[in-house]
This record gives sequence, C-alpha cells and structure tokens, in this order.
Amino acid sequence: MSKEITSRAQDYSQWYNDLVIKGGLADYSAVRGCMVIKPYGFGLWENMRDVLDRMFKDTGHQNAYFPLFVPKSLFEAEEKNAEGFAKECAVVTHYRLKADPNHKGKLMVDPEAKLEEELVVRPTSEAIIWSTYKGWIQSYRDLPILVNQWANVVRWEMRTRLFLRTAEFLWQEGHTAHATKEEAMVEAEKMLHVYADFAENYMALPVIKGIKSPNERFAGAEETFCIEALMQDGKALQAGTSHFLGQNFAKAFDVKFSDKENKLDYVWGTSWGVSTRLIGGLVMAHSDDDGLVLPPKIAPLQVVIVPIYKGDEQKAMISHKVHGIMQQLKDLGIRVKYDDSDNSRPGWKFAQYEMQGVPVRLAIGARDLENNVVELARRDTKAKMTVGMDNIAYYIKTLLDEIQLHMFNKALAYRNEHITPANDWDEFVELLDSKTGFIAAHWDGTPETEEKIKELTKATIRCIPLDNPLEEGKCIFTSHPSTQRVLFARAY
Amino acid sequence: MSKEITSRAQDYSQWYNDLVIKGGLADYSAVRGCMVIKPYGFGLWENMRDVLDRMFKDTGHQNAYFPLFVPKSLFEAEEKNAEGFAKECAVVTHYRLKADPNHKGKLMVDPEAKLEEELVVRPTSEAIIWSTYKGWIQSYRDLPILVNQWANVVRWEMRTRLFLRTAEFLWQEGHTAHATKEEAMVEAEKMLHVYADFAENYMALPVIKGIKSPNERFAGAEETFCIEALMQDGKALQAGTSHFLGQNFAKAFDVKFSDKENKLDYVWGTSWGVSTRLIGGLVMAHSDDDGLVLPPKIAPLQVVIVPIYKGDEQKAMISHKVHGIMQQLKDLGIRVKYDDSDNSRPGWKFAQYEMQGVPVRLAIGARDLENNVVELARRDTKAKMTVGMDNIAYYIKTLLDEIQLHMFNKALAYRNEHITPANDWDEFVELLDSKTGFIAAHWDGTPETEEKIKELTKATIRCIPLDNPLEEGKCIFTSHPSTQRVLFARAY
Ligand SMILES: [Zn+2]
Ligand SMILES: [Zn+2]
Repeated sequence: MSKEITSRAQDYSQWYNDLVIKGGLADYSAVRGCMVIKPYGFGLWENMRDVLDRMFKDTGHQNAYFPLFVPKSLFEAEEKNAEGFAKECAVVTHYRLKADPNHKGKLMVDPEAKLEEELVVRPTSEAIIWSTYKGWIQSYRDLPILVNQWANVVRWEMRTRLFLRTAEFLWQEGHTAHATKEEAMVEAEKMLHVYADFAENYMALPVIKGIKSPNERFAGAEETFCIEALMQDGKALQAGTSHFLGQNFAKAFDVKFSDKENKLDYVWGTSWGVSTRLIGGLVMAHSDDDGLVLPPKIAPLQVVIVPIYKGDEQKAMISHKVHGIMQQLKDLGIRVKYDDSDNSRPGWKFAQYEMQGVPVRLAIGARDLENNVVELARRDTKAKMTVGMDNIAYYIKTLLDEIQLHMFNKALAYRNEHITPANDWDEFVELLDSKTGFIAAHWDGTPETEEKIKELTKATIRCIPLDNPLEEGKCIFTSHPSTQRVLFARAY
Repeated sequence: MSKEITSRAQDYSQWYNDLVIKGGLADYSAVRGCMVIKPYGFGLWENMRDVLDRMFKDTGHQNAYFPLFVPKSLFEAEEKNAEGFAKECAVVTHYRLKADPNHKGKLMVDPEAKLEEELVVRPTSEAIIWSTYKGWIQSYRDLPILVNQWANVVRWEMRTRLFLRTAEFLWQEGHTAHATKEEAMVEAEKMLHVYADFAENYMALPVIKGIKSPNERFAGAEETFCIEALMQDGKALQAGTSHFLGQNFAKAFDVKFSDKENKLDYVWGTSWGVSTRLIGGLVMAHSDDDGLVLPPKIAPLQVVIVPIYKGDEQKAMISHKVHGIMQQLKDLGIRVKYDDSDNSRPGWKFAQYEMQGVPVRLAIGARDLENNVVELARRDTKAKMTVGMDNIAYYIKTLLDEIQLHMFNKALAYRNEHITPANDWDEFVELLDSKTGFIAAHWDGTPETEEKIKELTKATIRCIPLDNPLEEGKCIFTSHPSTQRVLFARAY
C-alpha cells in the first residue's frame, strides 16, 4: 500500500490527496467541488465534534437549528457581509421539476415554479439567525443568547481541495447576543481560547492566537480573532475564527433590547466557527510518506491488533488471548479493533493501518504467546518494541498519552523553528521562498501595503498575535514607522 | 402561562401549535415552510439522535456524509424515485449574486453564473449515494456496506406544519448494499425493529409494525416497512420507514459486484429513515391541555427544582440543601435544573415547567427544610406528594422509570382501544367520523380500491401488520374476496 503514496518531497499536494483518499477519509463526488466524507473520515469528525460540543456546553452554550435557506432580502441586509459572500452563493430559484417533453425519461426545471424571492443556500447564518433573534429579544432579561449550530454550509469556491476548501462543508457556528460590548468581546475571546485548547490538546496542533488585519477580517465583523497553524510545507492554515460583530447585525435586522433603566439599545453580537477544514490541517501537520498519523485522542481507532498464525489452531489460541486484551483495553475506554480477517496477509494489514494512521499496532504470533509478549509498533515514531502481556492495557493507555504529547511537541518544535524575523524586503522575500513558515516583520498598518505585499509575494498577514510585544521599527515595504511585528505567511 | 394554550377540545390543531411554540420547541422562520428548532427542542432531538445513533452502531453501521446537492442527471436516473420527488424539489440554478444596478444596496442573481446542470437539493439521498457506491463496490468482499447519514433534506411541501411537515427537516437515512436479496431483506426488517424499539422504549410511543400497500410505498422501493403510531385525535402518524430497494438503484447506477464464483450481479439495497417529524408525534401522543408531557428517557430536563422562600436567608438555606440533592441526582445521571431566578414567582415557574413537560418538579420551602421533605409533582399524572429528603435521588430515579412506563401503558391502552374492526362500508364510514383510530377492514388488494376509498373518506391503508392473521372476508368497498384485514386511518 504505502508505495502508492506520492512522497512529500516529490509532490506535496499530491501526497495530501493520496493520504485523504487512500487513507479512507474522503472521496470526490459527482457534484463539482463537493466531497463524500467516508466512514473513517466521518469517525474522526465525530470524535472532534463530540469534544468541541462538550466544550461549548461547558461554557454555557446550547445547540439549535436554523434554516438552510436565506431569502435574498435577508441575505443582503448586512451590506458588508452580503458583499463578502455574494460571489460564491448557490441560489435556489425554482421549487419543482417536471417531465421534459423533448426527452423521454428526463426532467427539466418547471418554469412555472419560479420562486417569488430567490433563496440563498447559507454560506454562513448570521442573516437568518439575527432575523430570528429579533423575535426572541425584547429586554436585557432575554440576554445573553448563547447558541451554537452544527450544520452544512455552501460557498461556491472555484478552486477546491478535499477538506481544505470544498463547495459544501460541515461546521459549527456559534451566534451569541449580548447586552454590552464588553460582554460580547469577552465571549469572542473566550471561544478563541476554546478553539486553541481543542487544537493543541486534542489535535496536537500548536496554534498562534491572534487578531486579523482588516483585509482578512470576516465580512460584517468589527474584529476577527483567529488561530493559525503551520503545515509541513511551511504554509499557514487558518484553523478557526471568532468574530466580534459589534452591533452590525443588530442594526441590519433592527434587534434592540431595553436595559434595566428601560433604555433601548442595539444588541451586541459574536459569531465563531470551525469546520471540516480542520481535518485537512490535521492531515498536513502530522502525516508522513507512509500515510496518516493521527493523534490518539481523536483517532477513530487507537489500537489495532493483528494475529500472525499458521492454521486454525494457532489462530484460535491467539484469538482467545486477544479477546482478553481487547476487553481490558475497552474497559479503559480505548478504541480497539482486532483484524483477524483471512482476506489479507499481516504485511498488507500493517501497511494498511500505517496508511490510516492508527496510533498503536500490536502483532501477536504463536511464539509471542509462548513468551507472553506482544510486538508493539508506534505509528508516530515507527518505534517497535516487545512488551509483556501482563498490564498491557495500562501500558498502552500511558503510551497513547505519550504519543499525543510527542506529536504535539514535534509539531511545536517545527512551528517554533519556522517563525523567523525579517528586517527588510529582500530578507522577507528570500525567507518566503527558502525557509518558509511564519515571518515576523514590521508593517505600516495600512490595508494598501498588505494588499501590495500579497500581490507581489502571495503572502498575507496571518495575524497580529495576542499579547504581541511592542517594538519600534520600519515597515519592510514602505519603511513607514511601525510599533510591532506581525506574522506573514503564504496560507491555505 | 397554561391559560394561553388552546385546549384539545377547542381546536386540536391550534393546541398542537401552541405547545410547540410556547413550549419552546420550535419557531416559525422567515423562510416559507422552514422552521427554527429552538434550544429546548433541539436538546430533545439530540437525546433522540444519540439513542438512535448508538442503536445503529450496535447493529454494525457507521456514519458518513454525502453531498447536499444531486445533479439533475443523477436525480432522474431511477425513474420512479425521480417521479416521486420531482414535484417538490428545491433547485439550484445559479452560483453567484451581483449588485443590482437598478437598486442600490440590493443584490440580484447573476445571469452569467448559470449552472450548466441544475442541482437538486436532496429530498433523499439514494441517487447521490448509489452513484458513489458504484466506485466503492467491485466484489463481494466490499459488501455489505452499512452506512448511515445524519442530514438535512428539503421537500417543497405546499402545506406545512411545525415538525410534522416542513420544507426542510433533519433526519437520518441509512443506505445499505448487500450481496443477496435475503440479506437486504433481513436488514430492512432489522431496522424496522430498531425503530419500533426506539419508539416504544424511549419515546413511550406504541407502534404497529407493518408493510405499506403499493400506493403508499416509497418511490423506488420494492417493499416499504413502516411503524405507525396513533395520535390523541385518532389520526395515525407514520413514524419511520425502512425500504427494501431490490436492485432498482443498483440497476439505475450500474452497481455490480462479482461473487465468489466471479459471476457479476447487481447489488441489493435498503434505505431507512426517521426524522424530526418524530417530535411532532411525541407531542401529539402524550401532551395535555396544560402543555407538553415528555418521556423521561429523552426529556431535555428530567427534574426541575424550585425554591420557595422569603428573603435571602431562607433562599441561602434552601439552596445549600438543594445543591446536595442536585449532586446526588447528577451522580445517578439525571438531568436536573435548579431554577432560583428572582425574575418570576414559583407559581409562574410551575406553569412554565408544566408547559415544557419536565417529568418531575420538586418544590422546597423553609417548612419543608425543617421537616426534611420536598414537595414532588409528576407531570404525567399531575399527582403531588410529599417525599422525605433522605434517598430522594434513588426515589426519583425509580419514579422516572415508572413515569416512562406509565406513559407508554397509557398510550398503549388508548391505541388498543382505537383499533376497531369494520365489516361493511357504512360501519367503516361511521367509525372514521365517530370513534376514529385504526379501522381493521377487508380490502381487495387493489391500488384502485385504496385510491377510491381515499378519495371518498381521506382514509388510507396505514399498513398491513407484520404477522397479520389470515381471515377470509369481503372487501368493504368492492365486496371482492379478501384474505386479511388491513389497517385504515386518516393520517398526518
Ligand atoms: Zn516522546
Ligand atoms: Zn403508573
């Protein structure tokens, strides 16, 4: 199996596609730009979703569900948001098909079933949600509203990549409403920390928390917080965003509340989201030329056991022993599979589970039974070791934690090695093409300069890190004065 | 609060809407026929979904995700299925909006961004899934495929009702592929039993398992199994369906497999689904004129505790005691809320939680503290009792089971009383308008007769029960010979 994967050095982009498809995470579909998430990939998403969902509930949020469609008149109400998404909207214009009189057995759109008002398939739900909140909010007693939604959204992207950029994707979108600016700002920052916690402690993905420059801000937001991760090819990936919306949507949809003194004011809002894009980031951050490497905490399978036997008698003896081990592992909450299928040989199975990134592989043969040991292989380091069968379950439980930590530390070391200061334009351009990664450089703070730098180098400002140290300097492009370095990178 | 609910006797339909909206389950939305599922309603759906999801996984299924859109050419491939859904399809025809030159600040569909091929928003996913399965299946080793999807679907219904019939709804759809007809048939029946188990043991909703007549069969299926429930107004509700698809979709999408002897054959299929419609059935089956009555196993909240106090000191003493009780309840896995808000009085809170169908309400006052007791009220029977505080958690745990069982038995008794035989046409018509419920009557087995009966009475054949006893008789409409009674009813 592993021979079929393109190596990173050969073609990074093809390596990624090979991993996603041959690793069983996703597949292309018959719909342009849309993908099928296969069971193994969806199992990964379920684990991620369950952790995030618990984190949202622990911070006081509840789930709800709002319509897939946004009537055009609502969609266009918040002008900046509408402008930001108008160019990539799937639009429903008709509500019926009919038999095509000219082609037997074929259907055509029924021209008589044209909608009076077109419906936009949600690219994000601020419009439909704030138009609903108007009916839910009268006074300060109705606030805050802390709601999250797990949903599919559609953005008609022209160039798509499995998980990283698809026309339809799955995500969660939190939409909160508050009585004060301060409370909304605290919420937006809180959710950024939740995302960072999730990325680092579950995905083993170190992230930089920061603020977006105006050019990269969410359309309709007053401030966008983000977490940025680094991929193995030195490109950055925006892994999650949390927006302080100010009163923009409240004003667009006329959502006011009366405070304790009976004064009317517009409501303050936030929204925040992460998507199946995270899976793309996970693949690119940790995997190697033999396949996926998945962090134990969210891996669909944490342990796979492969028997090595000649004949049914040996198989039966090994299986008997394995069932005991399986039970011990399950009792510790470990996700384990015993692959005793006769369809393929152990070597083929090894390659298959390596490809799928199962963190720990056990192999047990007749000799191992005699010696009361198992052969254990770690996916992340490829280390192999012989381990006694007694206490194997506790050994593995500890090992899974060690693997999780090791993956994070490895990614962190790589990331930290790839934050490099650049003090002038030549150095900046040179770094982008050689070392890659994040480049910490002075910027004059204007959208025009950021735009020019992007045109010339394809690098954008990924973020202005939270708690960024102040430092006097000169913009690498205009030499105008600057008070801090910001992080540039080429990005997915 | 409860005064605002229309009574069942006054207007059953308005009673239902009042419960859904004032009970906080759902709300109308700005999109025709689509609803907003509010946090309380979504919490209910989450509990239902989690139980079903575990049942699906315990029977060997995995989740996956397929595109929201179905290209028209795929949609029309299975002719009967296409014909069945063509009249209620939302169709995406364009992928971009642009500024409207004639209306400043408004958007319009960009005529230059017309799709080459229209996309149907999935009303069900057989087409997109079987077109995908073609790429996944080559040999018997690739079978069975046991996949489920949790998704939103759209059917452009003209007359909509909250939960019962909405243009967009949430559901799960299982789609399985098998090497033999027998295996597919076993799967379709197995999932019917899973649905019945869920309805009866979690929703406390007795159901009749049966087979649909050809008129009511799913478009594209060879056999449709269903569970049918009875509402308090004597109308039936189809609560879930499981379809044996034969080789229809395999033929439409050319999905073949080679068996062990290397012979090629088309794959056999099933599909099965339940939706947010179940919530409508739940509401109609159990609730009363004071509000919702929710079965403990899936109720978002199982217990609510309301303090009754004068002044902060009493409140503090009660709260201290309540926190201990809360912890005991939570330790037993019971979902409990303590409502100590000062915004409203105890009587108002009682009515509110009654409206929302919380199974058990506790009230604790200063006198109760002294006596070491709490006042307990059951939502289902409205019984009130004084209960000692020691062992209150275990008492409630047992009580929740008793309530669950009591609700089921009550609904079962009502349902059983409302299955009535009719031996001729006059009796049949008379029963439909007086006693209502299911009517067991002979039918000549022809679609024409069923259609005529429907036209005349609005009653349809809900199902031919599984294990239906054979009995010679004459069709109530045509007097032609019949071998068994089938169940007719007016239905949602
Ligand atoms: Zn290590
Ligand atoms: Zn009872």
